[in-house]
Amino acid sequence: MPLKKKEKRSGIVTLITDFGWQAEYAGAMKGAILSANPRCRIVDITHEVPPGDILRASFVLGNTYPYFPAGTVHLAVVDPGVGTERRPLAIGKNGHFFVGPDNGVFTAVLAAPGECAGYEIARKEFFRRPLSATFHGRDLFGPAAGRLSLGLPARSFGPRVRDFARLEFPRAERRGGRIAGRILWADSFGNLITNIRREEHEPALAEGGWRITGKGWRIERLSRTYGEARPGEPLALFGSAGYLELAVNRGRAAEALKLKAGDPLVIRLKR
Amino acid sequence: MPLKKKEKRSGIVTLITDFGWQAEYAGAMKGAILSANPRCRIVDITHEVPPGDILRASFVLGNTYPYFPAGTVHLAVVDPGVGTERRPLAIGKNGHFFVGPDNGVFTAVLAAPGECAGYEIARKEFFRRPLSATFHGRDLFGPAAGRLSLGLPARSFGPRVRDFARLEFPRAERRGGRIAGRILWADSFGNLITNIRREEHEPALAEGGWRITGKGWRIERLSRTYGEARPGEPLALFGSAGYLELAVNRGRAAEALKLKAGDPLVIRLKR
Amino acid sequence: MPLKKKEKRSGIVTLITDFGWQAEYAGAMKGAILSANPRCRIVDITHEVPPGDILRASFVLGNTYPYFPAGTVHLAVVDPGVGTERRPLAIGKNGHFFVGPDNGVFTAVLAAPGECAGYEIARKEFFRRPLSATFHGRDLFGPAAGRLSLGLPARSFGPRVRDFARLEFPRAERRGGRIAGRILWADSFGNLITNIRREEHEPALAEGGWRITGKGWRIERLSRTYGEARPGEPLALFGSAGYLELAVNRGRAAEALKLKAGDPLVIRLKR
Repeated sequence: MPLKKKEKRSGIVTLITDFGWQAEYAGAMKGAILSANPRCRIVDITHEVPPGDILRASFVLGNTYPYFPAGTVHLAVVDPGVGTERRPLAIGKNGHFFVGPDNGVFTAVLAAPGECAGYEIARKEFFRRPLSATFHGRDLFGPAAGRLSLGLPARSFGPRVRDFARLEFPRAERRGGRIAGRILWADSFGNLITNIRREEHEPALAEGGWRITGKGWRIERLSRTYGEARPGEPLALFGSAGYLELAVNRGRAAEALKLKAGDPLVIRLKR
Repeated sequence: MPLKKKEKRSGIVTLITDFGWQAEYAGAMKGAILSANPRCRIVDITHEVPPGDILRASFVLGNTYPYFPAGTVHLAVVDPGVGTERRPLAIGKNGHFFVGPDNGVFTAVLAAPGECAGYEIARKEFFRRPLSATFHGRDLFGPAAGRLSLGLPARSFGPRVRDFARLEFPRAERRGGRIAGRILWADSFGNLITNIRREEHEPALAEGGWRITGKGWRIERLSRTYGEARPGEPLALFGSAGYLELAVNRGRAAEALKLKAGDPLVIRLKR
Repeated sequence: MPLKKKEKRSGIVTLITDFGWQAEYAGAMKGAILSANPRCRIVDITHEVPPGDILRASFVLGNTYPYFPAGTVHLAVVDPGVGTERRPLAIGKNGHFFVGPDNGVFTAVLAAPGECAGYEIARKEFFRRPLSATFHGRDLFGPAAGRLSLGLPARSFGPRVRDFARLEFPRAERRGGRIAGRILWADSFGNLITNIRREEHEPALAEGGWRITGKGWRIERLSRTYGEARPGEPLALFGSAGYLELAVNRGRAAEALKLKAGDPLVIRLKR
């Protein structure tokens, strides 16, 4: 049976996990993928999702998969409930394919526009035997991702799923003369990524006349680039994933502004 | 000369090193592999073996190579004795190929069932010239791994080796009413991996009636999954590599139980 | 138009960035490369250049690219000035290709012998639209690297560039009876890499009769291997990149000798 155009494969499998690089987990999973499809090319996105941080994995997945060629398989294994009742999923959406646990890791993928077809990975002949209770990345998701990358249709894995688990993304809210958001996390540059989305909040900020203040610092306008402020000065810009970031030119905002993941961030708008 | 079936190659080269990701070492070695075989596919297992920890590298290798397709070349370079008398090796076993120093890094590979044919990498025309005294990963092992992945037989590298260096794996022992083991290391989840092997010790533990105790905690039964205990509670299970692990559901056992690599762990069996 | 021999491609794209592994940045850039050339093979050199450390990236690039097969594309994105006036570059040299910002990251490449042809990446049809102001790795350099790896000539990207930005490499100097150098950085083994180059300074050191001293330690001769000193003892050798290193056999020089990046290092030569 020839593949339909939308079922075409790129031969690429991307990986997002919280396994870290030190233990054997990422390597064993790669082996399982390659044993199912010895010709696929594996691309590491990250193995450094903070352990168990499903929302973070969802964010990284949502901000990477659209840049890959259609027909790529994206494997996301952040799976604190491994071996319990959560279902394993294979999903097709917008020409991309996704494999991972039904625990919210696909929240950003599901929220994106486009038709989505999800299936429970239920056919046991695809599992490694014996199936461990603690490492489905190696014994179940890896083999499924490898087979998907060969061209196996997602629907062949098991029954259709429509009631996906989703996480609540902590949205920033405009209340009266304020935007009440929070710091999601700091990146490797010390830039503080917030939950204030460009799409929703740029109009209110583009015209200026607002301020964010902290101990000894104040930001009052949007920058376009990190190099726009004077060295050492804090700035705010909408970053490459579409969220407001606080940064310090040639410095580290996380340390300089003394803010961390989870801290509230309030923008006072001019009335 | 056509390759015999057991000499088939997958075109995949896996890497286990203690080079870290920051310096140029892993990159330069990858270049050397690809210069020998520009079409091979390199798969990073880890570059974060603790510096000089040969036993750890052996463990990671033993727990990853079996999941790869036959004909894969596994390069393991943890080599504190680089440039001294230890021999460089190319080994074929169970359809897999291994390259690295003869310092014990192949202990787990050699201990696995199956026939093994090892050769000293002695043919100098395969070395980079000049051969550095400090970086055989780039100048000797990388080029050898690349050539092996092209289909060159292991025996073509040099004389047969039979007296491999091996490390003593610190086995847990049953003495009277106790199993005396120890903590090998903590993984990225804070799970504590012990040296208590499922094969040897599961029968004594499966029936219950035993206990492991620490300051303020106690474990008295085997779990099957991390999600089985109440959040914050310690549990013990046989992990994906076949060793007893101590874990905390949604927590980090290493911190919660105040145990670290090398600490003794005693299981008191009921008489 | 057939490619000239020197324009041949290996299908390999190497990556050097300061993005870290945790955020989505490296993954999104890989997607952009693969969208331009779905068949290329991506090789991670490092994503752990210290943030904004252009000189370090230049050093890693200079010490890795020569080991790859000709026709490889090397992408180096350490780009604190992203979105400002610095030019994006595509360079061909010695059969290798380089993509990145014109901020000094190619200093080591430009200093190597050989003809060099650099071009500004100016053709906007190669950019992602909309082009972000903060992530040219994903929106400009990645797509350019992917197209270069397909065989597009470097000259097709835009106007010729001859006045490349270059960083001053902090050279060690011989003054009278001393070589005055400094510690560049420590590697993952704790080895201290200095700026004292083998080519310039080995003759003065090979014959002995010199010393380097610190608090409670002294080195007076060149070693050839790390294993040559007694365990715990400090030693000096010319490392695999051609620079003098201070190391401790089976130990970590950075901690044992209490030296760090930027510290001066003086070798007293015998008169």
